[in-house]
Amino acid sequence: MSSVDQQLDELRTEIKSELPSDISVSEVKYEGPELVVYTRDPKEFAQQGDLIRQLASKLRKRITVRPDPDVLSEPREAREQILSVIPDDAGVSDLDFHKDTGEVVIEAEKPGMVIGRHGSTLREITKEVGWTPEVVRTPPIESSTVSNVRNFLKQERDERRDVLERVGRQIHREEMSDEEYVRITTLGCCREVGRAAFVLSTPETRILIDCGDKPGAEGEVPYLQVPEALGAGASNLDAVVLTHAHLDHSALLPLLFKYGYDGPVYTTEPTRDLMGLLQLDYLDVAAKEGRAPPYDSEMVRETIKHTIPLEYGDVTDIAPDVKLTLHNAGHILGSAVCHFHIGDGLYNVAFSGDIHYDDTRLFNGAVNDFPRVETLVLESTYGGRNDYQTDQDDAERNLKQVIKDTYEKDGKVLIPAFAVGRSQEMMLVLEEAMRSGDIPEMPVHLDGMIWEATAIHTTYPEYLRDDLRDRIFHDDENPFLADEFNHIDGGEEERQEVADGEPCIILSTSGMVTGGPIMSWLRHLGSDPDSTLTFVGYQAQGTLGSRIQSGWDEIPIDDADTGRQSTLTLNMDVETVDGFSGHADRQGLENFVKTMNPRPEKVLCVHGDESSTQDLSSALYHDYNMRTFAPKNLETFRFV
Amino acid sequence: MSSVDQQLDELRTEIKSELPSDISVSEVKYEGPELVVYTRDPKEFAQQGDLIRQLASKLRKRITVRPDPDVLSEPREAREQILSVIPDDAGVSDLDFHKDTGEVVIEAEKPGMVIGRHGSTLREITKEVGWTPEVVRTPPIESSTVSNVRNFLKQERDERRDVLERVGRQIHREEMSDEEYVRITTLGCCREVGRAAFVLSTPETRILIDCGDKPGAEGEVPYLQVPEALGAGASNLDAVVLTHAHLDHSALLPLLFKYGYDGPVYTTEPTRDLMGLLQLDYLDVAAKEGRAPPYDSEMVRETIKHTIPLEYGDVTDIAPDVKLTLHNAGHILGSAVCHFHIGDGLYNVAFSGDIHYDDTRLFNGAVNDFPRVETLVLESTYGGRNDYQTDQDDAERNLKQVIKDTYEKDGKVLIPAFAVGRSQEMMLVLEEAMRSGDIPEMPVHLDGMIWEATAIHTTYPEYLRDDLRDRIFHDDENPFLADEFNHIDGGEEERQEVADGEPCIILSTSGMVTGGPIMSWLRHLGSDPDSTLTFVGYQAQGTLGSRIQSGWDEIPIDDADTGRQSTLTLNMDVETVDGFSGHADRQGLENFVKTMNPRPEKVLCVHGDESSTQDLSSALYHDYNMRTFAPKNLETFRFV
Ligand SMILES: [Zn+2]
Ligand SMILES: [Zn+2]
Ligand SMILES: [Zn+2]
Ligand SMILES: [Zn+2]
Ligand SMILES: [Zn+2]
Repeated sequence: MSSVDQQLDELRTEIKSELPSDISVSEVKYEGPELVVYTRDPKEFAQQGDLIRQLASKLRKRITVRPDPDVLSEPREAREQILSVIPDDAGVSDLDFHKDTGEVVIEAEKPGMVIGRHGSTLREITKEVGWTPEVVRTPPIESSTVSNVRNFLKQERDERRDVLERVGRQIHREEMSDEEYVRITTLGCCREVGRAAFVLSTPETRILIDCGDKPGAEGEVPYLQVPEALGAGASNLDAVVLTHAHLDHSALLPLLFKYGYDGPVYTTEPTRDLMGLLQLDYLDVAAKEGRAPPYDSEMVRETIKHTIPLEYGDVTDIAPDVKLTLHNAGHILGSAVCHFHIGDGLYNVAFSGDIHYDDTRLFNGAVNDFPRVETLVLESTYGGRNDYQTDQDDAERNLKQVIKDTYEKDGKVLIPAFAVGRSQEMMLVLEEAMRSGDIPEMPVHLDGMIWEATAIHTTYPEYLRDDLRDRIFHDDENPFLADEFNHIDGGEEERQEVADGEPCIILSTSGMVTGGPIMSWLRHLGSDPDSTLTFVGYQAQGTLGSRIQSGWDEIPIDDADTGRQSTLTLNMDVETVDGFSGHADRQGLENFVKTMNPRPEKVLCVHGDESSTQDLSSALYHDYNMRTFAPKNLETFRFV
Repeated sequence: MSSVDQQLDELRTEIKSELPSDISVSEVKYEGPELVVYTRDPKEFAQQGDLIRQLASKLRKRITVRPDPDVLSEPREAREQILSVIPDDAGVSDLDFHKDTGEVVIEAEKPGMVIGRHGSTLREITKEVGWTPEVVRTPPIESSTVSNVRNFLKQERDERRDVLERVGRQIHREEMSDEEYVRITTLGCCREVGRAAFVLSTPETRILIDCGDKPGAEGEVPYLQVPEALGAGASNLDAVVLTHAHLDHSALLPLLFKYGYDGPVYTTEPTRDLMGLLQLDYLDVAAKEGRAPPYDSEMVRETIKHTIPLEYGDVTDIAPDVKLTLHNAGHILGSAVCHFHIGDGLYNVAFSGDIHYDDTRLFNGAVNDFPRVETLVLESTYGGRNDYQTDQDDAERNLKQVIKDTYEKDGKVLIPAFAVGRSQEMMLVLEEAMRSGDIPEMPVHLDGMIWEATAIHTTYPEYLRDDLRDRIFHDDENPFLADEFNHIDGGEEERQEVADGEPCIILSTSGMVTGGPIMSWLRHLGSDPDSTLTFVGYQAQGTLGSRIQSGWDEIPIDDADTGRQSTLTLNMDVETVDGFSGHADRQGLENFVKTMNPRPEKVLCVHGDESSTQDLSSALYHDYNMRTFAPKNLETFRFV
């Protein structure tokens, strides 16, 4: 018998001895990081409210209880009983019964009301029907991404169960090595921004953290082919952990599956959905620009199929010697600081991913409080000695001034923005400014993927800032549903109408004016001296956005009808409003480290250009007396 | 056609066009790093003395010319012709004809006389008989190691040719990668002495440098199982380079072949022989101490079969993007500083191995003059801030005083010594001291492997200090053949006789009194207060030698007859004479770096305990303003 089977046998015996004699245990198995207990007495189990929690704390495992298929009531009958237990206000939109696992997925507008206080309504449901309820939120704004992902996972349910069972057995395998070490190998994003990828390795386990591309440098992918990564075979990786959905962290993750990786991807649920959205767009853009995409959409689906979503704060076994906990990073929806606890108290490493230290309208500031952490891998995008940003209040005041000035000229404000993150922050600023009368009410048009990204945000309000989350729970206060917001879904015709119409604000992708509908908006509005092109985000060198900022006014542009390139003379006013970055500035990075609890012994400064990483590294060394490094790509650091 | 075959085709065409029309080329192939040209006109080839040299410089390859088998004269006939060409004084002891390659191996006491001025006699031989002569030295002292190795290689000639051809094709394969990097991964001997092992890697090539054990810590072997080393499969290594034969560098090399490695081992010829001697002894000691040896003697033979000997100064292609040159390291016979030139002028790394910077009686000081070198990996055995040693003159004076004092008491001087290196240095000191009358003439008995190791030294006088080499070429001046030296080959009986006899000096292994015949000498002489136990080498902590040095005089010892352990009370005088180390001291290490040409940009301080490597690293940084490191095991440094 394998050591895992033996372990499961012992667990089964232990669980039986812990349970009252009237509750049977028919099977015990691993599914991903969870221990699943099958019983012929699901109702009795549910009756004793605390039983699962007691078991979980006794066994130090995450436990799910499922009914044996043959003790389940008929779905038709169960449906009625379930609906009679759930309050009408919950807004149940779908019930989906899975006979194979005894689960019923309940989609509702207000999941909280399906769950009940401390899960009381859920337990009530099981007591009534035996089925195990699982609750998801009906997106307040319809999101094709969310519904595609959910449908896909439903359809691939069987294969996904196989994946989870295999992963579960891997996680709980016996430790083989008697060596001890903890190492980090840098595969990308050192002394540069882009192609984030790190390997965290112990004698037992190898974990890849992030796998991104390098914007503006398509050839420069992470060094996946070295033996420390995939050189020894993709099956040598135990797990992949994704900090957040931005393409410089996620773009090449599907490539792993093309190379034969078949293991889990741990990340938050919103990151899974946003990642899918951005990866498919990445393929789309590559195709449009005539580049061969490195993988196809099938691999994006494989990635989603292998994703095991974790919630902030859940401590999860992901290998025999590694526990992972994700914490809010404040950067974009679902972004996480990833904390790894290695061995039994041996060592702790936190990867910051990208962070925003202060609260924004959209998110709480990044978490920097951990039980233990010896080494921090820290982003350094704004780590340079002069990288101090305008604070958010000033930034908002400046933006509102630009809008008022333009409005008074009867002009339009055109804002290039990234679909994910900055656009939603803008929406919140604009919604409040109009509600409070700081700026006149006018339409705010959302073009490109912004609407879809916003829909995903409203599907996962738990990941937003506390007060924003509470507002979204009430339809009438959900700022994203405000009347002024209009989704541009009528193509060129609608854009023409908007351009010919009254003063308004337009948020459109791409954020650095490198393509997408913003190009069309420039054709419509570029010659209007009363309108204002307003930059609110970082414009990388070499992008059209950066060139316009530096004074270019002759812009090469493809004609919408003929496709021929012509030159557009830009007569719009061009303004830049600083202070809306999704990244902590130099002060924020220092504060993150300074107030971190506990203070780490070592910091690796990454995800910044050479001078930013070196500036930050030497500042942290001098001010806080830690051992700091500005690694190069392809180096390995050993900590234990 | 493979790219190598195509390359060979082109080379053949080019060679033909370079040669006079009366010289045919029947085949061109690679054997290891050499290009072998087969011809039906070997005599004509030999007639034009400069032709091979011209070809080699034109093609930038090492070239060997061989006759087609069917144009060769009969061996019996050839033998007479050859002997008539070679002067009688050369002392030819063996002629060995290899029909398959057209080579004749000539073993002679004076190889120089077989070679002639600038190779004139060799060319004369080919002109006469067509066979290609290869010359080896008849060991002036019979060495079973040397003759075993030679016989084994003769017997495995066919398989070895296959190995060489495969290696040759590997070396000359097409470069596949368009990336550029140079990395060093530390697998052992960082912040410790022992288990030397490093990986030097480029996108194209992975080279292992050394593969030793850790004396006194049998479990602690290099981290060979990580993906950067053998984790991705032994076949991922392109080459192994061995700095010198000491077991902390060579002991686990045969293990690679057990793990499936099938590529070349580059080192000097004497290192190959000494390595074989020491590895077999290593297996022997393991067996005697009841430990399971990690490999068997078959793997030692595999290692020898795969060894490609290089001479100091030969620049050799060992991979498509790596050239290796070995230089004298002054540490033990055949020890080398290994210089790697990577890419076409891209980067240069030198591994010091173990070095002695100053000249000793036995060796010239380590070479530190290179065309280019950016990074130096430097041993730090005596890198600590107080690791200054007595200079050799004082050391010799002290030793002679100990000997004179003991002689005057009618006692005997017992010196525990390593078989390789320090013993031969002692022999030279003693021989001169007696010849010049500094100490009285008396027998010097050599016990353990010392005699055999000395025989290997005299087989390769080219690797010894200039003036010593010249003396060995004349039998009557060869100091190792001096009358006072006696090989203890009569076992306990002879030892008893010596112990009962007149004043004398005894050099015996093991050097740290951890076993071997020295134990027997202690039984014979330990109770004699007129005799002196004299330490001339480093005694590692935990060894019996170190304990005796610190004052122990109750010594646990196995009885020779019964094998039972008893306690011996040590009444001998115990003396320590410093200054005979094979390692550069702190001053020598600093001098090596200070006078190095060119001065390296970066230095990795390894092969020393934690404080020694850190002391040396920080001293070099402060005094010479280089970037210095004291790496840990399992780290990777990137240089390009
Ligand atoms: Zn279903
Ligand atoms: Zn990001
Ligand atoms: Zn990023
Ligand atoms: Zn050595
Ligand atoms: Zn050594």
